[in-house]
Amino acid sequence: MPALTEFALIERYFARPGHASRERQGIGDDCALIDVGDQTLAITKDLLVAGVHFFPDTDPVALGHKALAVNLSDLAAAGARPRCFLLGLALPSADAGWLEAFSRGLFALADAHDCSLVGGDTTRAAPLGQESGTLGLSITAIGTVDRQHYAGRAGARPGDEIWVSGALGGAALGLALLRGELALPPAQRAACLQRLERPEPRVALGLALRGLATAALDVSDGLLGDLGHILHRSGVGAQVQWPALPLEPALQALPLARQQQCALAGGDDYELLFTAPAAAHAAVAALASPELALCCIGRIEALPGLRLVDAAGGPIDTTLHAYDHFPPPIPR
Amino acid sequence: MPALTEFALIERYFARPGHASRERQGIGDDCALIDVGDQTLAITKDLLVAGVHFFPDTDPVALGHKALAVNLSDLAAAGARPRCFLLGLALPSADAGWLEAFSRGLFALADAHDCSLVGGDTTRAAPLGQESGTLGLSITAIGTVDRQHYAGRAGARPGDEIWVSGALGGAALGLALLRGELALPPAQRAACLQRLERPEPRVALGLALRGLATAALDVSDGLLGDLGHILHRSGVGAQVQWPALPLEPALQALPLARQQQCALAGGDDYELLFTAPAAAHAAVAALASPELALCCIGRIEALPGLRLVDAAGGPIDTTLHAYDHFPPPIPR
Repeated sequence: MPALTEFALIERYFARPGHASRERQGIGDDCALIDVGDQTLAITKDLLVAGVHFFPDTDPVALGHKALAVNLSDLAAAGARPRCFLLGLALPSADAGWLEAFSRGLFALADAHDCSLVGGDTTRAAPLGQESGTLGLSITAIGTVDRQHYAGRAGARPGDEIWVSGALGGAALGLALLRGELALPPAQRAACLQRLERPEPRVALGLALRGLATAALDVSDGLLGDLGHILHRSGVGAQVQWPALPLEPALQALPLARQQQCALAGGDDYELLFTAPAAAHAAVAALASPELALCCIGRIEALPGLRLVDAAGGPIDTTLHAYDHFPPPIPR
Repeated sequence: MPALTEFALIERYFARPGHASRERQGIGDDCALIDVGDQTLAITKDLLVAGVHFFPDTDPVALGHKALAVNLSDLAAAGARPRCFLLGLALPSADAGWLEAFSRGLFALADAHDCSLVGGDTTRAAPLGQESGTLGLSITAIGTVDRQHYAGRAGARPGDEIWVSGALGGAALGLALLRGELALPPAQRAACLQRLERPEPRVALGLALRGLATAALDVSDGLLGDLGHILHRSGVGAQVQWPALPLEPALQALPLARQQQCALAGGDDYELLFTAPAAAHAAVAALASPELALCCIGRIEALPGLRLVDAAGGPIDTTLHAYDHFPPPIPR
């Protein structure tokens, strides 16, 4: 039997149409939406495993930040206001220094977004008979959404513009740095590691986009793959201008292949990727600030498929894939 | 620095009074309670790690059942009606047969409780450069509670009777069987393994106890430890009659020391332990059925401490501890 990709796996074993219809949103979106009385909650859950999502020796302050940040980023994509979260911790050992640092990073971000820890579970990660195990983190974050203005992934329409916040490729470059695959000047190195280890969830932008965005998600698996989710769910296609993409500054001096790999297929940037009607261009552009750029990178089209073009309008190969946790096996 | 117990760890690094007060319930309870408009949600999250909470070769149908069951059990303790859940899966590999069986066990229980899967996260468990990793599961379950009749852990009052559902010690015996520590006749063996691997969350009982129970939780860490949580939170003590405890039938022919170890300190039974006013005795007793016994095992007292007594009223040593994921290190 051929190996399954992560998305095929979810689709095959866990997506059940009858169940999903009971709630407003189902499996495969950034958040589940739950109607409670006259309010709507957005709920998201992310898993982080040492050695898969972060290096085991990652600074625990940064890890505490990132574990919550990736969940708040999902809330941001849903235009949700963070309310509270639950924390699951599988710990190799009850290391007081590590825990103190981890909780400091976690609560600093939680406080910044007025999002309180309300519960969770703590457990040993070391299997019986073994000295140590793999550190694992699972956070569930809950926010409130304005149901009238919820964008989701299925609302992109031909003629809509495609926007992305911040800069792309920094986190992928940070990962390459940690793997020793390249060297950069100290300031650029620090910036890329910051992008990888301390992503800023775009919560305020997500709230500001309510009523403007027609579809939105956060760039966690890579721009091409994530945009593909919007196109697939919305039943549309897109043209994206490569020169319009906001590249992480450190990328700009690197070879084009590296630029494209990091900016198109690099994950972990946690910027918002969204579509909005062309008529809303000025309103969207007005949300940009010195701290957070907003770039219009292309346009939604009726013709299915994703067309990436260069400055001359010529096609760029988009067979670079989004990050998949279960890539097909390498043929022998 | 001395090693921390799981409870001390949560208390020291993650319990923040200012935050907890914002929500009705805080860290350390079975569920967090979240007020949304005029409704209240109960939210719980459990982590299960292969080799810590279950043997890696556990039947995936049973594992799918148990992963959700332990969360529904927390909802039951809160008197909540299950509504939906999120699933986090860290998988050593995308094994189609395993996933099919796991999802079958999961959805059978979900359907029985009309609780739909609305989202989650799936990831690889194998750290980079390693062939395999540790299977990890994290479920967040959400239910609705009747705020007027919520019991929690802090409501036990002197004079209240202490009740427990079903039978105790079966799951601990099942674990001992799997470890090869003892042998039992086939029917008893099957019953104990069923208790360990396919616990039934007492959802209907939890709902029926609304307005009757003054405090409630599910027995996950062992009767003595779990009752201790109620006593601590309620600021009371208790006397418990050992002969009144409902023992798993297979326990009854075993030595007293094994009986007490399994029934008092064995975890994973997922029965409801609750207190109710003595005046409600008949109303509680009427909730028992041929499928689910309810036993009155003792009484709440004003004097702090937990006194376990035998048939003659003599004291029984209660220094058997509840299961702790982070036991103090063995002195060298």
